[in-house]
Amino acid sequence: MGVIHRFTGDETAYDWEGVTDKAYQDGDVKGATKKILMGPAEESLNFRMRYFRLEPGGHSRLEQHPHEHGVFMLHGRALVRHGDEEVELGPRDVIFIPGNELHQLRTVGDAPMGFICVVPAH
Amino acid sequence: MGVIHRFTGDETAYDWEGVTDKAYQDGDVKGATKKILMGPAEESLNFRMRYFRLEPGGHSRLEQHPHEHGVFMLHGRALVRHGDEEVELGPRDVIFIPGNELHQLRTVGDAPMGFICVVPAH
Repeated sequence: MGVIHRFTGDETAYDWEGVTDKAYQDGDVKGATKKILMGPAEESLNFRMRYFRLEPGGHSRLEQHPHEHGVFMLHGRALVRHGDEEVELGPRDVIFIPGNELHQLRTVGDAPMGFICVVPAH
Repeated sequence: MGVIHRFTGDETAYDWEGVTDKAYQDGDVKGATKKILMGPAEESLNFRMRYFRLEPGGHSRLEQHPHEHGVFMLHGRALVRHGDEEVELGPRDVIFIPGNELHQLRTVGDAPMGFICVVPAH
């Protein structure tokens, strides 16, 4: 059966029914919240869809790994490092980050920043 | 290198730089537009991220296939059939549709409806 999570959040802090926060303190991470919208609980076999919210001043870990990322910006503004480049992105912009590319997302400005990040399940 | 598509659309018709419409007339489809945000052109190896826009009165094909769908609603309202159930969803609601489940999305009301749909690459 399909699994539905209804939106219950607001413009700066997205939330959904039946979705709980996951721990996201992986090394040098600051001011970040992670929610898994589609993953093992939904019996997704091929990919995972996660929501990340980064506070003003927050950032993800600068990381590099074999799996690719599909990022869809939802709210706020982000400074995204990918490889040797940096780019500022806003709502509804998308970036595909291939495997093994160094990357990091930082909040720009005074509003929290949030995005969807899709990854392979394995 | 990361591949960026900047948002250039409006509230009822999303669009992005570097993304073209794809043909989407697969049998009994009505009033639908498809854009591939992440796929072969972006060298995505594991998943594809597509945007679908359905006009008022539009619908996708009633279909059933082995691959799973991750749907994130963006704008408008949808009546989603999944298996023997029907549910109405609005912006930011999500539904995971497992493989082999019969499904169809229809626009509800007078505004176009749009959503992200993630599928495995293979």
